[in-house]
Amino acid sequence: MSYGKRRRTGYDPASIQEYTFPIENIPRLSARDPEVYRLIQASRPVVISDSGLINSALKWNLGYLQENLGDGSFHVYGSKDNRFKYYDEKRAKQCKSFPKPVKRYEVSFNDFLKMLMEKKNTRERIYLQQMLNESVGQEIVKDYVDFNWDWVGRIQNEQGWGPLSSNLLLIGLEGNITPVHYDEQENFFSQISGYKRCLLFSPDQFENLYPHPVAHPCDRQSQVDFSKPDFERFPKFRNARAMEAIVGPGDVLYIPMYWWHQVESLKSLSPIDHKLRDFSTTTSSGSSGDIPPVTVSVNFWYRAAPLPATVKFPISAQQRVSVMRNIEKLLASALGSADEVGKLLSTMVDGRYNEE
Amino acid sequence: MSYGKRRRTGYDPASIQEYTFPIENIPRLSARDPEVYRLIQASRPVVISDSGLINSALKWNLGYLQENLGDGSFHVYGSKDNRFKYYDEKRAKQCKSFPKPVKRYEVSFNDFLKMLMEKKNTRERIYLQQMLNESVGQEIVKDYVDFNWDWVGRIQNEQGWGPLSSNLLLIGLEGNITPVHYDEQENFFSQISGYKRCLLFSPDQFENLYPHPVAHPCDRQSQVDFSKPDFERFPKFRNARAMEAIVGPGDVLYIPMYWWHQVESLKSLSPIDHKLRDFSTTTSSGSSGDIPPVTVSVNFWYRAAPLPATVKFPISAQQRVSVMRNIEKLLASALGSADEVGKLLSTMVDGRYNEE
Ligand SMILES: [Zn+2]
Ligand SMILES: [Zn+2]
Repeated sequence: MSYGKRRRTGYDPASIQEYTFPIENIPRLSARDPEVYRLIQASRPVVISDSGLINSALKWNLGYLQENLGDGSFHVYGSKDNRFKYYDEKRAKQCKSFPKPVKRYEVSFNDFLKMLMEKKNTRERIYLQQMLNESVGQEIVKDYVDFNWDWVGRIQNEQGWGPLSSNLLLIGLEGNITPVHYDEQENFFSQISGYKRCLLFSPDQFENLYPHPVAHPCDRQSQVDFSKPDFERFPKFRNARAMEAIVGPGDVLYIPMYWWHQVESLKSLSPIDHKLRDFSTTTSSGSSGDIPPVTVSVNFWYRAAPLPATVKFPISAQQRVSVMRNIEKLLASALGSADEVGKLLSTMVDGRYNEE
Repeated sequence: MSYGKRRRTGYDPASIQEYTFPIENIPRLSARDPEVYRLIQASRPVVISDSGLINSALKWNLGYLQENLGDGSFHVYGSKDNRFKYYDEKRAKQCKSFPKPVKRYEVSFNDFLKMLMEKKNTRERIYLQQMLNESVGQEIVKDYVDFNWDWVGRIQNEQGWGPLSSNLLLIGLEGNITPVHYDEQENFFSQISGYKRCLLFSPDQFENLYPHPVAHPCDRQSQVDFSKPDFERFPKFRNARAMEAIVGPGDVLYIPMYWWHQVESLKSLSPIDHKLRDFSTTTSSGSSGDIPPVTVSVNFWYRAAPLPATVKFPISAQQRVSVMRNIEKLLASALGSADEVGKLLSTMVDGRYNEE
């Protein structure tokens, strides 16, 4: 063996797409650094490199998950391109004209592995996104119990957050993109294997990112496609400016509530060995070699802190988003139809509030 | 005396201004016609020719009022042109940059009469607009008691309206205009002497008439000046269509709540003799001959019927106006400032709800 043959690790910089907006780095700090807690207190994103939050899950390769995830069923999304734009199933059903941006499958974990193999050479990409629940096996339960709940629970208490609402397990192909959106909860986004690029935008960029109407199936999602932004329709997207973090195994990114985020799975320079067993129970069988490289992450979603008893003016960007959401909902209810909201809002604004 | 010398009565058709919008007639019906009550029930305007509502006030010329109105003080507005655009005094004080469209005086009735004489040959026009209150003399109280309360009270009960909130006495120079606005109450507009042209627009023309923001001192007033409409700023004013009534002594016009109305004092062909006594108590003195012709009217404002327990969808144009007003107020309160409402509404609409 010679030194020259040392294997490169990390992600392939060529898998980082270029966009139109300026990008600055999200701070990356040790969990021992008190600045971490100041940033969280200020609702600012931060990457925590050594919280140990999901150290017990770092061994979650596909073979281990296949063995231990249990017999439950899993939500797997399929996309004709690399974008997996979330939409609300119930609203999509009510809205006949809505073309679903992704297809949803409900399959066993073994079937997901088969899909990974079978779709390897098709255009359809897939992304597993499943809440961890009671159907998981004993080993996963043990790993879950071994998460660093002390650390995360202390922050939860200090910040006055509500309870943990869910943990979402994400297993996606390299190159998969979760397009820019915001969530109504606090999130510790925890990377288990592979690398993800997270682009964040503060809540005061609401007008730059043009979210769909609240009643739309794609509520909370931006209408802007970063790879081909329509500046005619979305002129203020020119003012967008991002913060970026690239997270790898063991990293935890704090995504504050209402912060916009786009998450992109990067190409690993050294994909892990998934140590799969053969699918003896199914018609086709496969081995690790047939599985394309994936990234694995887990979200920790916490409900927001309760509203303060007294509101300080001017209200925060987060509170503005909340006010706008509530107005849109209130109007849909007062008018008896979400389809009427736009016309009424335009009537309120046109020639009355939109003077230069 | 020859037949050829018969005196013409009524108003001078030459005092009717032409506008850009189409105009249809408001029905004119006898109080005995049951259609009157169907129109009121449907919140449609109607002129009632013989209700007798204010017959006891038909003798209210300036001399009689001078004698019997009492020692109270009267709101008199002064305008440099013929438009008397209402504004809220309190809001105007808070809003330093607001140029008051009219000047407000607080004077005795004799001083008002003096103003009428003195300003006869100046550019400033004046308009008395005063709530009738306890300061009026015995004769006026008697006339007031003799109003046809049976007739108006029966309608109030049938419609489920709230209580009478006030009676506004209006004494204005011929040519005075109260520019287009809406009120949040039901109104029986009663003509005592002279003629007024009333132009009404239904509440579904909100977008055609571009009212000022709710927090503006000119809340409920249209921004459009009919005599020189700015179609660039207010393009939908091209869609405006009016209903018109010309009311003379004894006529009562029902102006439904939220209906837009502009009221114009017309030129009488036979101005009444006001039978003024000399102003012995004041420095200058005058007689009827020095008084320019005026019109006299009284409003009967009734509070709205309470909201129905269940709302029918789609909601009515009136209910839409109410919803918009409430949203504007709610936002001003949630944002801690009315100045922020426009920006937030624009952010909600731009690129999100205003697609063609
Ligand atoms: Zn998210
Ligand atoms: Zn009015």
